[in-house]
Amino acid sequence: MTILHEDRLFPAEEHTRSIARALYEGVRNLPILSPHGHTNAQWFAENEAFPDPARLLIVPDHYVFRMLYSQGIALSELGVGPDTKADPQDVWRLFAAHYHLFRGTPSRVWLDYAFEKVFGMEERLTAANADAYYEAIEAQLAQPEFRPRALLARFKIEVLATTDSPLDTLRDHQTIRSLGLTTRILPTFRPDPVVDPDFGGFLANVIKLGSMTGEDTASWRGYLRALRQTRQRFKGLGATATDHGHPTAATADLSPSAAESLFWAVITKNASAPEKELFRAQMLTEMAAMSLEDGLVMQIHPGSFRNHNPQVYERFGRDVGADIPTATDYVHNLQPLLSRFGNEAGLTVIVFTLDESAYSRELAPLAGHYPCLRLGPAWWFHDSPEGMMRFREYTTETAGFYNTVGFNDDTRALLSIPGRHDVARRMDCGWLAKLVAEHRLELDEAHQLAQELAYGLAKRAYKL
Amino acid sequence: MTILHEDRLFPAEEHTRSIARALYEGVRNLPILSPHGHTNAQWFAENEAFPDPARLLIVPDHYVFRMLYSQGIALSELGVGPDTKADPQDVWRLFAAHYHLFRGTPSRVWLDYAFEKVFGMEERLTAANADAYYEAIEAQLAQPEFRPRALLARFKIEVLATTDSPLDTLRDHQTIRSLGLTTRILPTFRPDPVVDPDFGGFLANVIKLGSMTGEDTASWRGYLRALRQTRQRFKGLGATATDHGHPTAATADLSPSAAESLFWAVITKNASAPEKELFRAQMLTEMAAMSLEDGLVMQIHPGSFRNHNPQVYERFGRDVGADIPTATDYVHNLQPLLSRFGNEAGLTVIVFTLDESAYSRELAPLAGHYPCLRLGPAWWFHDSPEGMMRFREYTTETAGFYNTVGFNDDTRALLSIPGRHDVARRMDCGWLAKLVAEHRLELDEAHQLAQELAYGLAKRAYKL
Amino acid sequence: MTILHEDRLFPAEEHTRSIARALYEGVRNLPILSPHGHTNAQWFAENEAFPDPARLLIVPDHYVFRMLYSQGIALSELGVGPDTKADPQDVWRLFAAHYHLFRGTPSRVWLDYAFEKVFGMEERLTAANADAYYEAIEAQLAQPEFRPRALLARFKIEVLATTDSPLDTLRDHQTIRSLGLTTRILPTFRPDPVVDPDFGGFLANVIKLGSMTGEDTASWRGYLRALRQTRQRFKGLGATATDHGHPTAATADLSPSAAESLFWAVITKNASAPEKELFRAQMLTEMAAMSLEDGLVMQIHPGSFRNHNPQVYERFGRDVGADIPTATDYVHNLQPLLSRFGNEAGLTVIVFTLDESAYSRELAPLAGHYPCLRLGPAWWFHDSPEGMMRFREYTTETAGFYNTVGFNDDTRALLSIPGRHDVARRMDCGWLAKLVAEHRLELDEAHQLAQELAYGLAKRAYKL
Repeated sequence: MTILHEDRLFPAEEHTRSIARALYEGVRNLPILSPHGHTNAQWFAENEAFPDPARLLIVPDHYVFRMLYSQGIALSELGVGPDTKADPQDVWRLFAAHYHLFRGTPSRVWLDYAFEKVFGMEERLTAANADAYYEAIEAQLAQPEFRPRALLARFKIEVLATTDSPLDTLRDHQTIRSLGLTTRILPTFRPDPVVDPDFGGFLANVIKLGSMTGEDTASWRGYLRALRQTRQRFKGLGATATDHGHPTAATADLSPSAAESLFWAVITKNASAPEKELFRAQMLTEMAAMSLEDGLVMQIHPGSFRNHNPQVYERFGRDVGADIPTATDYVHNLQPLLSRFGNEAGLTVIVFTLDESAYSRELAPLAGHYPCLRLGPAWWFHDSPEGMMRFREYTTETAGFYNTVGFNDDTRALLSIPGRHDVARRMDCGWLAKLVAEHRLELDEAHQLAQELAYGLAKRAYKL
Repeated sequence: MTILHEDRLFPAEEHTRSIARALYEGVRNLPILSPHGHTNAQWFAENEAFPDPARLLIVPDHYVFRMLYSQGIALSELGVGPDTKADPQDVWRLFAAHYHLFRGTPSRVWLDYAFEKVFGMEERLTAANADAYYEAIEAQLAQPEFRPRALLARFKIEVLATTDSPLDTLRDHQTIRSLGLTTRILPTFRPDPVVDPDFGGFLANVIKLGSMTGEDTASWRGYLRALRQTRQRFKGLGATATDHGHPTAATADLSPSAAESLFWAVITKNASAPEKELFRAQMLTEMAAMSLEDGLVMQIHPGSFRNHNPQVYERFGRDVGADIPTATDYVHNLQPLLSRFGNEAGLTVIVFTLDESAYSRELAPLAGHYPCLRLGPAWWFHDSPEGMMRFREYTTETAGFYNTVGFNDDTRALLSIPGRHDVARRMDCGWLAKLVAEHRLELDEAHQLAQELAYGLAKRAYKL
Repeated sequence: MTILHEDRLFPAEEHTRSIARALYEGVRNLPILSPHGHTNAQWFAENEAFPDPARLLIVPDHYVFRMLYSQGIALSELGVGPDTKADPQDVWRLFAAHYHLFRGTPSRVWLDYAFEKVFGMEERLTAANADAYYEAIEAQLAQPEFRPRALLARFKIEVLATTDSPLDTLRDHQTIRSLGLTTRILPTFRPDPVVDPDFGGFLANVIKLGSMTGEDTASWRGYLRALRQTRQRFKGLGATATDHGHPTAATADLSPSAAESLFWAVITKNASAPEKELFRAQMLTEMAAMSLEDGLVMQIHPGSFRNHNPQVYERFGRDVGADIPTATDYVHNLQPLLSRFGNEAGLTVIVFTLDESAYSRELAPLAGHYPCLRLGPAWWFHDSPEGMMRFREYTTETAGFYNTVGFNDDTRALLSIPGRHDVARRMDCGWLAKLVAEHRLELDEAHQLAQELAYGLAKRAYKL
């Protein structure tokens, strides 16, 4: 028995499906490029076994526990939070008993993929087989071939990027470089902790940045030098990209003296909310300037209202499923940055959105004009079969395929990586098959594009 | 001959269609739950015959006459308004001569359903058969089996909720309770007339609320007590829900003293537009607090710009097809209420939207996290085959099925109720069939979900 | 060999496709009505041969060169701009070598159509056959049957509207009227240069309007008289419509004295941005008032952020692919105009959008109520197979078909006109076929509607 059907996610219409199958055959075994994600470098540096099924698959995955929480199950019963006393097997039973909640969601697809392809399970998870599942997975996790490095090789991951603070020593990345793994594991420079005045501990972070770099980060120029130096440190460990997770897409292009005054206000006074927003905006343009110098690809991930639920934030902290997308303006907000650097073909700025209404209205028209701009794939809540299909339907006609950058798995769930790439490859082949079946594209072109979407575009856009 | 095809609304692809058919077989005859609607309790209390086809099917249905009006036909010619002198049969002829305007609209589907299934018509309505139609329907309306109570039984309506002002005596509902009908007919508490300072006659309404309850509604506490007492009166007659039709989704969580001052400003002074908006916002949170006490399910229906056409409003009043949706923010607007009550699994807040761009951006992410939140079905202009499909496509992957609440017919057109539920059941079965055909869901799961979407979810969410 | 497949753009599902084919057979050879476009009247007045393939198909088409530019190719290498020295055949080679960039875009569909149907090419354009293509097209352009007037006849264009400034003498249109062509070529009154204070040379334009009409355009009443007189001049040369390309959909309905003061501020002082916006808003309402008098159909095309890229604007000027859509509010913005004239069935206002989220939320509900309103077809970036399908999916259920106005090609690329209308006819037949296959419409109705969408609706809405 199997859980997964060989034709899953392909269009139902038989002729289109047969084209999709053929396209998918050409890309299913390509190596995985994962240029944007949130796995933990420590796993690969230390190569410890994962503890148990619950702490591997449920506790760290906010996609999973947010759904359970939304139906009235307490987070502490799910093993989440500092004061949880939940037994991992009880957590697993609770999850299994509510597995029907995931019907129709991408989490279900990713989990089933891991269950069958990684752990060899043959039956859909239910309350009845919860213990059998738990024990089978637990036993396998104890085996050497389920340790993190072995999984990387088994998953054929060619490149895996993590996301890292400028204050991180990157010690794990240094260790990893000495190991000679076949997977290239790269850090990504994510400066939010030192460029976003609303980030927890911002001032202490700026001071620490100074002490780590030997620069005077109490001065605007010293602060910029410290950032430049830190980017070099990341590059030295293989980084090819930066990442910026601002609440809006606002950018600014202040004069050097105005920027300096703003920096001063932000680090010495209780800056107002608009001043903080302007500072974040200015820092995106400063980062673009540095990218033009050092060649790091710039990723902008705007539009999430972080920690929307204050009770949950107080008790459980960040990244527990309570970040909610907001309407996002790109046209006015990106203009200051684009006015200065938009015509630089040597710069790559990859923009993501949580507001799908911007795909056809703003993002595809911008990316179909500005040489520096590329569109990141369907992101976060939209990283799903329907979401991926909408991404193609709403962007292809104006931006084409070549202003997109392939797939990002964007995940901290290591086990879900091959399943996520498999979904993306299937959905892209389905979209291409539709274009072929409707005679909007010829088959040879579709084969080429399938390769590009699964591998080539990410390779080139992220300079991997 | 028939008007309706047995496979109507199912996906065209044959394999998917066959799955849809099988799923639909399992739900087509389920009883109807109608937990949100606008039929008139008086019909059932008095059980008078409906007057004629025009006054049954055209004059009270703003979906129908707004389309005719948009093409240049005067409302008075359609029998609408206080000074119309139109003969009902002439109204019918005008309607029949313009029936082509409804091609591709849900009104056409609902009307054809009523024509064939309720009145046994066998040919599509045209100018040529207008009189035959009129006379056939008119003759049937005179029969006892076409009286309101008989129709309820024939339509297999298990529960039917009306929508009622706090100032309504609910006399008809009292009468109905004494009749022992098989359909449970329930009032719904819709406090807009006494909580929205822009509602016509607001101050008089608040005074009347005082006299009806014996509370001093000139004081904040008395006003709240009067609302609480009125909710109890509704509950006593079977109400399980409240409904709130505000122009925006704004909520607020003021201190008791600030709320009291605001109430004072609103009832004694010429409060400003922002003060009125803040009062509505505060009242949503007050209503949530009361719902937590008394268990009434809370429905929020925001985002309609009411009476957009002042000339039509002046002459014809409210609810004549001139309400237009607006862009609606949920993420910032609902936060005050959710910050206070969002984590209460004992509270149910059902949110609706007229702004489809909020489905995947805001509503599904919110409902997929907050225990109190559920998504109401596709509403009003979006209560249509394409609209329902978009609702599923845009919400399922993030909120799943179990954070939705089944179908609402939301209508004052009694004859359209079975047709509307039939459309919803067919579209949901079509969506499930697509998931099965694409191997994103297994058939046994789809059968279960079809039952839930047609019956179970509404039963539980609305506590019916 | 052929480039185009006979079934291109039809739905893949065989039964639906066979219906689409049958519907398309009934409309494929209907004459073309092009009531809104940007071809150059001089072409037809002078009937010169087109210079070469590059200057015919690439240099004037910002859809084409914006895509190439977005991938790092300099505009000057593409023959664009005042200081380009690019050889046309080199431009063509560059284009051919990058033809893969257009995969999945409508430009590809339009270009392939022209290559095969106009120039008889039999193989897809590649770098390898670029010179053969160039020479074959160049040779044909020298033939008399490829001169502008011959192409109009060959394309079966019944009506072709241009877009013209009030300051245009319309000399070419006068010439054309004396030629007795079978195509009716009509001017369209586009007053932006004299009603938009932000338009380049606004004040000089208003002065010139005065000298052309003999009216005192330094006075509000003289200015309005000058506009009224110019509209009459356009009508005298066959114009049936006006067109308005404002940055937003704002309208206003000021008192005559307030309007006069605002005019005074705009022409004599350095008016503020809000005053200029208010003036544009007021002028839309003034134009509607004049349309009610003179019968010209009013078209509103709002929501483009013009010249978003200042570096490109400085060097290359307007209309070079750097205009980007913005979020657009219609409900509040159009209300002043609609409050005054919305109920006039004798007025026709056709509204377009670049913000697709407004289709189902605002535009279809407005057009499904107001007698004066009609929805323009999918526009600009959305004038594409997916864009057209979304237009129907999002508007039909609320506005129906009869509140839409057929297709606009909206192009300055003469050679693309038949290809664009062919795409529109195929997509509309595909949509109708879906409705028939799903038993939401009967076949005889679909045949009628196919005719209406391809011909009848445009004929009547634009009074052609």
